[in-house]
Amino acid sequence: MPKTNALPLIEPPATTTAAVAPCCPPLTERPFTADEAEAAARMFKALGDPVRLRLFSAVASHEGGEACVCDISDVGVSQPTVSHHLKKLKEAGLLTSERRGTWVYYRVEPSALAAMGRLLAVAPAAA
Amino acid sequence: MPKTNALPLIEPPATTTAAVAPCCPPLTERPFTADEAEAAARMFKALGDPVRLRLFSAVASHEGGEACVCDISDVGVSQPTVSHHLKKLKEAGLLTSERRGTWVYYRVEPSALAAMGRLLAVAPAAA
Repeated sequence: MPKTNALPLIEPPATTTAAVAPCCPPLTERPFTADEAEAAARMFKALGDPVRLRLFSAVASHEGGEACVCDISDVGVSQPTVSHHLKKLKEAGLLTSERRGTWVYYRVEPSALAAMGRLLAVAPAAA
Repeated sequence: MPKTNALPLIEPPATTTAAVAPCCPPLTERPFTADEAEAAARMFKALGDPVRLRLFSAVASHEGGEACVCDISDVGVSQPTVSHHLKKLKEAGLLTSERRGTWVYYRVEPSALAAMGRLLAVAPAAA
């Protein structure tokens, strides 16, 4: 029995991801608050490493929108390093993962990509 | 008299900026090469710090699209730290600067913002 009568949250069944609050207005709209900057900088920082960026684009562009480590290890670093970077991308909310059989499959979190795109949208008034 | 008959390049007169090659296809389009990842990661990394992100949004959203240090120092760090972060943003090609009288004025480099927006655009095939 649930402890409360609150409506259940709809959650993706078998995926795991860091909790990422929707963030923020376009960078050109108004000065960011400290909290907004903290949240947005986390996402940018995750992509601020060449190897992570290659892994992210390998996942993002992979057939079906998902990839296992076996598909994307061709970036010239060791498998533990690949795993480490994928973990960082997950912690930043940019990827989700799901284990199926032997492999863990990674997928881009579309809301994170949309949030970052929104940050970089040019506000009409500032264009 | 001009030294050559070549058509003059149209350049903003007194601004300085790091040379930034237009980079790259959307992250969802195909896996990035090492060079593309290097170039794009530089921009993301520059925005991957909360203070830099606040300064960037302060410049980007300031009236007239430009701001001097005197306008944007309200982020809780010392003036030398502000100057250091603005320099990093310039080196990443995200801001340009121009000295006018006592103050240096900063402006967002629109091509950099557009390049980052393009990186994060969702390719139709991968959506």
